[in-house]
Amino acid sequence: MAGLEPRGLALGETEYTTMDAPTLRVTIWNEYLHEKTNEAVKLIYPNGIHGALADALTSQLGADVTVRTATLEQPEHGLTEAVLAETDVLTWWGHKGHQRVSDEVVDRVQASVLEGMGLIALHSSHVSKIFTRLMGTSGGLKWRDVGEREIIWCVKPGHPITDGLGDHFELAHAEMYGEMFDVPQPDELVFISWFEGGEVFRSGCCWRRGKGTVFYFRPGHETYPIFYDANVQRVIANAVRYVAAPTGCPSITSNCQNTEPLRPIASA
Amino acid sequence: MAGLEPRGLALGETEYTTMDAPTLRVTIWNEYLHEKTNEAVKLIYPNGIHGALADALTSQLGADVTVRTATLEQPEHGLTEAVLAETDVLTWWGHKGHQRVSDEVVDRVQASVLEGMGLIALHSSHVSKIFTRLMGTSGGLKWRDVGEREIIWCVKPGHPITDGLGDHFELAHAEMYGEMFDVPQPDELVFISWFEGGEVFRSGCCWRRGKGTVFYFRPGHETYPIFYDANVQRVIANAVRYVAAPTGCPSITSNCQNTEPLRPIASA
Amino acid sequence: MAGLEPRGLALGETEYTTMDAPTLRVTIWNEYLHEKTNEAVKLIYPNGIHGALADALTSQLGADVTVRTATLEQPEHGLTEAVLAETDVLTWWGHKGHQRVSDEVVDRVQASVLEGMGLIALHSSHVSKIFTRLMGTSGGLKWRDVGEREIIWCVKPGHPITDGLGDHFELAHAEMYGEMFDVPQPDELVFISWFEGGEVFRSGCCWRRGKGTVFYFRPGHETYPIFYDANVQRVIANAVRYVAAPTGCPSITSNCQNTEPLRPIASA
Amino acid sequence: MAGLEPRGLALGETEYTTMDAPTLRVTIWNEYLHEKTNEAVKLIYPNGIHGALADALTSQLGADVTVRTATLEQPEHGLTEAVLAETDVLTWWGHKGHQRVSDEVVDRVQASVLEGMGLIALHSSHVSKIFTRLMGTSGGLKWRDVGEREIIWCVKPGHPITDGLGDHFELAHAEMYGEMFDVPQPDELVFISWFEGGEVFRSGCCWRRGKGTVFYFRPGHETYPIFYDANVQRVIANAVRYVAAPTGCPSITSNCQNTEPLRPIASA
Repeated sequence: MAGLEPRGLALGETEYTTMDAPTLRVTIWNEYLHEKTNEAVKLIYPNGIHGALADALTSQLGADVTVRTATLEQPEHGLTEAVLAETDVLTWWGHKGHQRVSDEVVDRVQASVLEGMGLIALHSSHVSKIFTRLMGTSGGLKWRDVGEREIIWCVKPGHPITDGLGDHFELAHAEMYGEMFDVPQPDELVFISWFEGGEVFRSGCCWRRGKGTVFYFRPGHETYPIFYDANVQRVIANAVRYVAAPTGCPSITSNCQNTEPLRPIASA
Repeated sequence: MAGLEPRGLALGETEYTTMDAPTLRVTIWNEYLHEKTNEAVKLIYPNGIHGALADALTSQLGADVTVRTATLEQPEHGLTEAVLAETDVLTWWGHKGHQRVSDEVVDRVQASVLEGMGLIALHSSHVSKIFTRLMGTSGGLKWRDVGEREIIWCVKPGHPITDGLGDHFELAHAEMYGEMFDVPQPDELVFISWFEGGEVFRSGCCWRRGKGTVFYFRPGHETYPIFYDANVQRVIANAVRYVAAPTGCPSITSNCQNTEPLRPIASA
Repeated sequence: MAGLEPRGLALGETEYTTMDAPTLRVTIWNEYLHEKTNEAVKLIYPNGIHGALADALTSQLGADVTVRTATLEQPEHGLTEAVLAETDVLTWWGHKGHQRVSDEVVDRVQASVLEGMGLIALHSSHVSKIFTRLMGTSGGLKWRDVGEREIIWCVKPGHPITDGLGDHFELAHAEMYGEMFDVPQPDELVFISWFEGGEVFRSGCCWRRGKGTVFYFRPGHETYPIFYDANVQRVIANAVRYVAAPTGCPSITSNCQNTEPLRPIASA
Repeated sequence: MAGLEPRGLALGETEYTTMDAPTLRVTIWNEYLHEKTNEAVKLIYPNGIHGALADALTSQLGADVTVRTATLEQPEHGLTEAVLAETDVLTWWGHKGHQRVSDEVVDRVQASVLEGMGLIALHSSHVSKIFTRLMGTSGGLKWRDVGEREIIWCVKPGHPITDGLGDHFELAHAEMYGEMFDVPQPDELVFISWFEGGEVFRSGCCWRRGKGTVFYFRPGHETYPIFYDANVQRVIANAVRYVAAPTGCPSITSNCQNTEPLRPIASA
């Protein structure tokens, strides 16, 4: 990406920005716990999952995007009002630290989504506070981690998130997620996964919440190099474009009292 | 209703039960605040909005239903684990006491809905904690209270909640609620309201959450005798039947770990 | 089924009726071609697929249902105005005779669905005239017939069509249908199939059309004894109950001209 | 629009093209009957409704769009295979000539939509052959033409079709369309209209069919200058961008036989 300048902070706190504007402003959030304590994970994601995603988006979207990262252990988890105000799309990866995310930050992220910020919830974020907050359900599912094969099918022809894909793609080794998946029926069901052990899963789903769009995408366990997969990267890059910065009519996010009538009222 | 025996507790704590079983078990929740302090409201709903709704459901549904009531000021707001375990449908009316509902009870009610309990959210409950929890949105809208005329149109032919209705019905005087209504697009849009002052509103909406169904129904401001209206009563009675006691396959409401594969796995 | 009296007409024209009323009136339509010419199919379905389905529904639903059958080669394919007027639910099985179904009968069946008759389209009926007419799409899909294993997952907890099922069931040998399935996104997605060869399929889907409900159910190739499977029978019986005889507000099925205003018009 | 060159054919057969490429290629179809025989209509739309729409789109979208027109009385109604092959978005206006549109052309347009061509159905096209073909329903509704006031509310915050609009806009005089509107529940409900006489209507709706998107937009009776209204023009221009040229994964529009398995099959 032309103009990319990693600011070179401490590992895991790296920010990526560009000189070019206007671009889609993406904030990549990662709890960033496994990578610091689990040697196998550290080997796969030496700069953290957020680092791998930042590289992927900048390589996929180039000058169209400005990427920054944020992690659990930063003040306010790196998601201050100021950061969210400058974020068009927030991607979220959490796993074992869900309960450590403060409710105040969850409130703030939810409010931003209702105002139009896109949210891409990845893999184990299905039970993150922010995802279940926006769904109204538990996000529960079945899982099994034996490194089985996954085939991901497109079921929504022409959907922008499938741009550049064929009708399916494969992951040689993945954690399994199986139905039921406790989410509201998606507004758009984009992908369904097949697993070698016999399960299926609604792996790519969009929901509208206020002015914002939430995209859930299943792949991405920390012990597999899935975020280096070209198709996975393509999906996430497509999703960034898709959920970013809606330009239509404004939303309402709290009650508007004593609205003036547009027409005279006789019956009162 | 054959067998109905109001147990004659203090005003507002009345329970209605029947001798007959099995019936749909309905719990009518009302914050029960306006009726105790506002003389005009007390005049309209001398036994509380919950009392009026209890009468309405027993007269509409007879022996098919067992009705009990619960209010904000009861211990645990009257919604203990035991009560919810015996509830097929919970109706909810709140207004100025939303913030006084404890998060613990909201958690409990949400869990019951995901397990299959139906929830009917009435009028100003659009910003109640339980409704917004299940929606993931703010529930915000426009409002104006000048007693204008409302016409409610059925837009879902054959929907069970419209049973016995024509294509529309009218309320002579109502508080206005106008779009935008900050909710997810309903799974089923049943009613749209027309207001004399020029607004429209999605007045009857169903959403599935887990195994449960949520029905939002707009009419019902405390200063109008709307819960005595025959059509309104019919809608709520229909909705009780519709959202009660789904009998289909079970839901998942938390993660199920280490699921056994159904087919042998070779790739791992 | 108490009161069942097969009228004992020629093979394939058998009608099943009961003495009891009121019951759900089901008409089972089958093109009834393979069973008369293909010895293997004849062996599996000696009374035709319609005969097997009639037996299944009467055994599953007993006195709650009155079953009659109709086939392609009958006058008007057995679907006269009179028959449709007495039909609450029509099940459809067609395969190689789709183009022999007259457009006039398709018009008639479509009109009945819009007025509230339920339609259950089985297996290869995905490209029948009546199904694609109601969908507005081609119904196209991928297929392969090598007798592979299929696992059918419930993805809609509490849906009446899943009543009595666990979270999945299996078919040892089935024709494969794979995505993309060219249909509108279902109003309710109930089942997703897993196939041994790597594909997935939206195997159980509901759509509303006018006052009627259409349910598509994938299993049922003529060369497999799938309609004798207990789970398949249960699904079809559940679906009969689910799509039958909506009692809500009426539909509109043609333009209503010069509607009288409900409120005075000043602007004209 | 830079480069616009009306080719100046006979009235009603005018084609608008540009020198610039690549642009969105829009074909504006109009039955073009009222304008030739009704003096009042001719006065409002001297170049036909298609001429007014062509001017509107070129003025709204400039060099981003190439516009051509087609009418009922042209050979193949102006919608040859060649024209459709060069069309990204087709807008449709018909009223009294619906039955004169050949089924062959309807088949062709439907096939193009399934392959990804956008379709914008305007006003009385709710009962056109192509719209009802894609819906599977009658398109029936209530109507009254007394020139009453209409207020159109946005109910989908951030939807691209509402770009540049506030939360509502008004038409001083319009034909009324009222619910029920016999269409499948829209995938996206964008606008709801309020009418002075008491009705409401789902005035802006999107449905996906195959790879294509259908947008229905209510305003536009031939006896009102509605297609000159700035908000109406903005909506149609937004819709052209929204439904044009999806770039995602391919659709299936007929059966694909004997698909090769992706994984070995043991059970057969």
